[in-house]
Amino acid sequence: MTKPKQGIKPPHPAQRPWRVLERRYLDRSPWHTVRTDRVQLPTGVVVPDWYVFEFLDWVEILAITKEGKFVIISQYRHGLGETRYELPAGSCDEGETPLESAKRELFEETGYGGGRWELLMTKSPNPSNHNNHAHAFLALDVEQIDVPHNEESEDIRIHLLSREEVLALLLDDEIQQSMHAAALWKYMYLTEER
Amino acid sequence: MTKPKQGIKPPHPAQRPWRVLERRYLDRSPWHTVRTDRVQLPTGVVVPDWYVFEFLDWVEILAITKEGKFVIISQYRHGLGETRYELPAGSCDEGETPLESAKRELFEETGYGGGRWELLMTKSPNPSNHNNHAHAFLALDVEQIDVPHNEESEDIRIHLLSREEVLALLLDDEIQQSMHAAALWKYMYLTEER
Repeated sequence: MTKPKQGIKPPHPAQRPWRVLERRYLDRSPWHTVRTDRVQLPTGVVVPDWYVFEFLDWVEILAITKEGKFVIISQYRHGLGETRYELPAGSCDEGETPLESAKRELFEETGYGGGRWELLMTKSPNPSNHNNHAHAFLALDVEQIDVPHNEESEDIRIHLLSREEVLALLLDDEIQQSMHAAALWKYMYLTEER
Repeated sequence: MTKPKQGIKPPHPAQRPWRVLERRYLDRSPWHTVRTDRVQLPTGVVVPDWYVFEFLDWVEILAITKEGKFVIISQYRHGLGETRYELPAGSCDEGETPLESAKRELFEETGYGGGRWELLMTKSPNPSNHNNHAHAFLALDVEQIDVPHNEESEDIRIHLLSREEVLALLLDDEIQQSMHAAALWKYMYLTEER
């Protein structure tokens, strides 16, 4: 899956960053750390309160079994108020590498493990107001090695889907989680027969 | 670009929603409306404070000129603290349809307009903690019809890139915005010659 860096990309634009004049934390709860920055733009304009949500990095896992089935989960998501298909995913714990977090989350949520792992995609949930990254890992030839170990607040079902079924979900926008859809579409593009 | 609904996709999962026992708004600022819900899961477990960020819907535009160039912008993004390539995008105003918002945002940020428009993808920024959707529109054969009309807090540069250049950015994870990467990868998959 790993590709050499693409040589033809245009030079990275160099707009100057904003100057932080003042920083104020509104909340530092475990699931809601938010600050507002008073910032000055290179144009001189001052914005009094730019909101930034601070999170540790996140991971999601595109795991495929030896039989070629995608390990997809479904769970009710309270922000959107819907039950949707998505990838196993979670937050990095303090001190973990993203790969360690990804292996832990796949195991906890599905009981699957083993296999060959590589980084598929690193991206931002929303560079405007999130300070963290979301790392997508590809895990090939995984096997069920235990039962799932979900947290109390997790009600997760596991679905072993074929590539065609996952592609059909993507084409219908049934994978609503943008980070997961991005990683899955990248994978589909890279592995499509041409 | 419009595809018929896929017949081979698995049935929609049917986990039951959570019951909201209490709802409390922490903030209702224009750029930060956040609530916590005390919720009861179908398992009986009570979670005292599930955070939900409330936003109006968002739009992003994949605009391609008559000459086949992608209208890409770059701007400094203070959450991530980096200047990145992304799609023209913005928030729906109250009472606007997503298509109206998309046409307005493309015009304001780039001065481009006209062309043939269709919905490319609707998705959730993050179904766990966002209540809104992000709609990606495809706009073909757009033309520059005016200069950009940016807001004071926007310092946006416009880049007319070839399909190959945009693909190179995607392959290098240079499009960090997950919602935009998802829409662009979907487009690349659908339009790749096979």
